[in-house]
Amino acid sequence: MPSYQAPVADALFLLNDVLHWDRYNNLPGFADASPDVVEAVLQEAAKISQEILQPINLSGDREGCVRHDDGSVTTPKGFKEAFKAYAEGGWIGLATNPDFGGQGLPYTLATLVNEFSASANMAFTMYPGLTQSAIAAIDKHASAELKNAYLPKMIAGTWSGTMNLTEPHCGTDLGLLKTKAVPNPDGSYAITGQKIFISAGEQDMTENIVHLVLARIEGAPAGTRGISLFIVPKFIPDASGNPGERNGVSCGSIEHKMGIHANSTCVMNHDGAKGWLVGEANRGLNAMFVMMNEARLGVANQGLSQSEVAYQNAVAYAKERLQGRSLTGPKSPDKPADSIMVHPDVRRMLLEIRAFNEAARALILWASLHADVSQKSPDEKQRQASEDILGLLTPVLKGVFTDRGFDNAVKAQQVFGGHGYIGEWGMEQFVRDARIAMIYEGANGIQALDLVGRKLPKDGGRALTAFLNEVGGYLKQEESDPAMQPYLAGLKSGVGHLQQATMWLMQNAMAKPDNAGAGSYDYMHLFGLVAMGYMWCKIAKAAQAKKAADAGQAAAMDAKLIAGKFYMERLMPETAAHLARLSTGADTMMALPADAF
Amino acid sequence: MPSYQAPVADALFLLNDVLHWDRYNNLPGFADASPDVVEAVLQEAAKISQEILQPINLSGDREGCVRHDDGSVTTPKGFKEAFKAYAEGGWIGLATNPDFGGQGLPYTLATLVNEFSASANMAFTMYPGLTQSAIAAIDKHASAELKNAYLPKMIAGTWSGTMNLTEPHCGTDLGLLKTKAVPNPDGSYAITGQKIFISAGEQDMTENIVHLVLARIEGAPAGTRGISLFIVPKFIPDASGNPGERNGVSCGSIEHKMGIHANSTCVMNHDGAKGWLVGEANRGLNAMFVMMNEARLGVANQGLSQSEVAYQNAVAYAKERLQGRSLTGPKSPDKPADSIMVHPDVRRMLLEIRAFNEAARALILWASLHADVSQKSPDEKQRQASEDILGLLTPVLKGVFTDRGFDNAVKAQQVFGGHGYIGEWGMEQFVRDARIAMIYEGANGIQALDLVGRKLPKDGGRALTAFLNEVGGYLKQEESDPAMQPYLAGLKSGVGHLQQATMWLMQNAMAKPDNAGAGSYDYMHLFGLVAMGYMWCKIAKAAQAKKAADAGQAAAMDAKLIAGKFYMERLMPETAAHLARLSTGADTMMALPADAF
Repeated sequence: MPSYQAPVADALFLLNDVLHWDRYNNLPGFADASPDVVEAVLQEAAKISQEILQPINLSGDREGCVRHDDGSVTTPKGFKEAFKAYAEGGWIGLATNPDFGGQGLPYTLATLVNEFSASANMAFTMYPGLTQSAIAAIDKHASAELKNAYLPKMIAGTWSGTMNLTEPHCGTDLGLLKTKAVPNPDGSYAITGQKIFISAGEQDMTENIVHLVLARIEGAPAGTRGISLFIVPKFIPDASGNPGERNGVSCGSIEHKMGIHANSTCVMNHDGAKGWLVGEANRGLNAMFVMMNEARLGVANQGLSQSEVAYQNAVAYAKERLQGRSLTGPKSPDKPADSIMVHPDVRRMLLEIRAFNEAARALILWASLHADVSQKSPDEKQRQASEDILGLLTPVLKGVFTDRGFDNAVKAQQVFGGHGYIGEWGMEQFVRDARIAMIYEGANGIQALDLVGRKLPKDGGRALTAFLNEVGGYLKQEESDPAMQPYLAGLKSGVGHLQQATMWLMQNAMAKPDNAGAGSYDYMHLFGLVAMGYMWCKIAKAAQAKKAADAGQAAAMDAKLIAGKFYMERLMPETAAHLARLSTGADTMMALPADAF
Repeated sequence: MPSYQAPVADALFLLNDVLHWDRYNNLPGFADASPDVVEAVLQEAAKISQEILQPINLSGDREGCVRHDDGSVTTPKGFKEAFKAYAEGGWIGLATNPDFGGQGLPYTLATLVNEFSASANMAFTMYPGLTQSAIAAIDKHASAELKNAYLPKMIAGTWSGTMNLTEPHCGTDLGLLKTKAVPNPDGSYAITGQKIFISAGEQDMTENIVHLVLARIEGAPAGTRGISLFIVPKFIPDASGNPGERNGVSCGSIEHKMGIHANSTCVMNHDGAKGWLVGEANRGLNAMFVMMNEARLGVANQGLSQSEVAYQNAVAYAKERLQGRSLTGPKSPDKPADSIMVHPDVRRMLLEIRAFNEAARALILWASLHADVSQKSPDEKQRQASEDILGLLTPVLKGVFTDRGFDNAVKAQQVFGGHGYIGEWGMEQFVRDARIAMIYEGANGIQALDLVGRKLPKDGGRALTAFLNEVGGYLKQEESDPAMQPYLAGLKSGVGHLQQATMWLMQNAMAKPDNAGAGSYDYMHLFGLVAMGYMWCKIAKAAQAKKAADAGQAAAMDAKLIAGKFYMERLMPETAAHLARLSTGADTMMALPADAF
């Protein structure tokens, strides 16, 4: 049976020492999140993750969800009770609007809580996670009436939320969607159409399920400019706001998937279901993007979460497994063999994972802080600057964290040898669960295209310029610190490659857009390596300071300094390969006729 | 439902045009394998793979193997009949000794047949594949009496073979194994101990199962020099050679695994089972290595096989899936969207797979030819030279093909978007099945260590020197051909990195063996990239000649020339990153105390 310990100490180090949490206490919500409160919240989140969510992860995978003939879905044993405990603990509403019962704490804190939950049980965490994203979209775009009707119940977790986007013939290309909305006399709409791959579309944990559905109002323009967003509840709220009449939306079947078995993936049939417009007609994609962007960061977090829990279990196994002898002579001569921790290649695998995990956690917290600032700062310029960085980082985090999260789960599984392939050890579940994160909320190739085709050129490249200026300023500011040299050199090299890659795209993608598409994936990963390298520099700086100030922290800080050095030696060199590939452009790959593939 | 077409045309091109099959017709077995015979054999192999094995792949995965209370195991529906057809077609004995009923055809041909079978149904192919490896070990090391008793039945496929190595406390480190062998008065041994992860350990397809078991004869030295190899049949042959008395070996349980569900992975309990010594006492590892080396090439082939079948299905899906528009404007304006083949990033994924598949097939055929020469050449020097290259290539092929085979299955799955995650499309099965190949027959980290710690320094580096001389001579020989320049430049750069990496290891690993361990994985992949790059050069040369000679082949040959160029542009640049990582040595990863992980 796998185990999990939430990385509370690392989280506090990142918030307090690396990201200087205290500098944000002028923002709403942050004042309530003093260091003590933050620590208490994280300890509680660790507890529910470790004690309630983690123990039902493996069993949930084996049992899966079951759809019954009446369209109802039963979640695995313990899930209903766990959801209740999660909702009652206030975790769903942690960072949501206090006007509707939320706690209004920083989004950054919710990011950590969600990482812990997802490490413990990714399939479970999707239920509250999608609810949180739906809450954000409703809060931002719906009318006061709809907000009052839905948000308090969703924030309390008595009702859940979902996203209904995909249809059989359209996933990425939402412009093709056919689900139609016909106005009813009462101001609502009759929604008809089939949606597929709807995570948490039906379940037995909440009194009601609130679907956010993209559909085309009769007569609307074709393509993406004719799509509107609707709230379609499973049960229509009655006069007193409780679940009333059953709506015409139902689960037609559930998918048999590679992983996340405990989360129901539903075909949802809308048969003239009653829906209420959210935001403006034909501007539905715009409103849905609030939900999608939040969900994309949530999915990035899932990548990190599986990498973290897989790492912890691989380390525990490696310490106990005795096999072979060190290349430099027996290290445990009294035992039949040394622990496999003596083997450099085992350490290589583990450190590749760890060097990602700590930087990725720093990076998603940094992005989350920008999300908080972009929503809450009284200074418009600051809001804009943070929104720029957040927009730039979102596809990078989604694409890079989920690719690496999956690769790392595979690496951790490899540490187990044959046992990694056997169900009962739980490692293969991490791999299967992590795999979906590369696909949903926009497949990673789409993230890369979003980055290169949309986020880079937006506003004349303002976001990237700001990012490069910040990193450049940092490199200059630290250049005289000799202890920082091993870290700065790696970052400098990576930034150089990023600048060259950007220049190449500017010079070659205008005239030939396929050059942007051909290089987008490499560019995304190059960007991710640089952004994580920047985080490692900040971590190293903070670790050196903490070590100097507190000898009791020396061992923990030395571990960070070593992991950071490993990152620069072993991960950062990939930036050169990304640049080399990208610079070859699209000609060769476009030269092959489609029929010749 | 996934589909599969065996790549017969590519196989024939590689054999005839690239590897010049006709040059080997002085070797036993090759004379019988004229071009017509080879083509007929491959067509028949394609037929059984496509028509019998492939249709039961998905169903076999869903159904899995079932162990009953009496220890018997039922394989999925259709497997028994498929095995019978496979055996009766003579496929098991294709390249085995004619003295015992084999067809004595080249091993190289069996490599292709096994690739086809494994692409169609990897879990199935393990049953005959392990039988083939057991046949090789018995043929090479057992007494005439044992050979006569076992080989004809195994070659005919009425009996199957397995390898019993792993025990709960020892996988890689066989020196720890405890299974014991006590001499019986009749010259046999009583074998007692538990073996785990025994693929095909019990099944319902053959009359008898022949286990090759590693055990320690009472009083033998500790460690690897006290291990002997035994034949332990499920049923002891009676006086007329038919299955007689039930032996004391039985299946205690079967594992629930990530994939290869249709292959039974058994705990085998030996309770004083009767076993017969194969080869010399205490030299069992030596004998088993015949089986293991053959099995390692077989596993490399599995990596290629899953990459190939996943590629074919991804291409078929990409051609049909309409989503989005080309970055350069609509390509199918009459349709609601363009096929996703217009998107550079989709082509990137597909070409990354294909650029591996064709070079990998060439490389494993080249290695297989060396296996044939090393066994069959009348010239001792040639035999030795081929054995050197084969020994050097075996860990590279096992490690690199299975890593890339898995990655490629993941990439092909990604092309499907959400559908790739759903069971019925079959893509996620390729990923789950491919995953085991990185683990069994020596986890890939062990392959890397075998390469760097054993194969490189062996005989003063004779094998590597021969390889580098061959490639160097080739580069020189072709340098004046202008059409070859794009290919040669990539290979040259890769070879340069390989030489630098080798030099670095020579200078740094003697004094500090951990430097070898720390760089072994990068070295293995660097070697693989160079070896496949060498194959691409040979393919490009042959393609240019074929295109010039036969206009009808122009399109097919152009596709190869493009895929080869893609390889040099997009895969070969990784050699620099491998060299950079390797050159950082072991210091950082060894600096972290084990407790601090």
